[in-house]
Amino acid sequence: MRANATVARNLRRLRLLKGVSQENLAMDAGIDRTYVSRLEREMENPTVAVLETLAVALEIGIGEFFETVDPDAPPPAQLPRGRRKAR
Amino acid sequence: MRANATVARNLRRLRLLKGVSQENLAMDAGIDRTYVSRLEREMENPTVAVLETLAVALEIGIGEFFETVDPDAPPPAQLPRGRRKAR
Repeated sequence: MRANATVARNLRRLRLLKGVSQENLAMDAGIDRTYVSRLEREMENPTVAVLETLAVALEIGIGEFFETVDPDAPPPAQLPRGRRKAR
Repeated sequence: MRANATVARNLRRLRLLKGVSQENLAMDAGIDRTYVSRLEREMENPTVAVLETLAVALEIGIGEFFETVDPDAPPPAQLPRGRRKAR
């Protein structure tokens, strides 16, 4: 699996593990929600600085984005669809 | 230590561990030697694709660039100065 595919899969896995929506992660990291979505679909080639911002927002180590992923593992379950209600 | 500083330190450490000059690493990875030099001096913010190319050239896992570095550790010893003789 190419490195950007590994990053994509791990970003999604870790984000869902933390129970965070793409929208809230984007807000916490100060980046655009569509960029988070594109990262998880392997459509971006992020820099170390972007990965660091995401790792800080998820409270994980940046190295976790590069952990080996079983390509045959089922994709992680989704969070409930739809935007969160405004708080 | 910021992530790009960790990458810089680990790139230099792992390159010297493998006994590879900046010039030869750049050639193997198909990137400019000055870019390798700038990476090791924390002057660049590389993408995942660039780190992957370097990891392949060094025969290491990309996650090794993000391993925690003791900021007080002495910098790794240098290779002998000067270009290699042409082969």
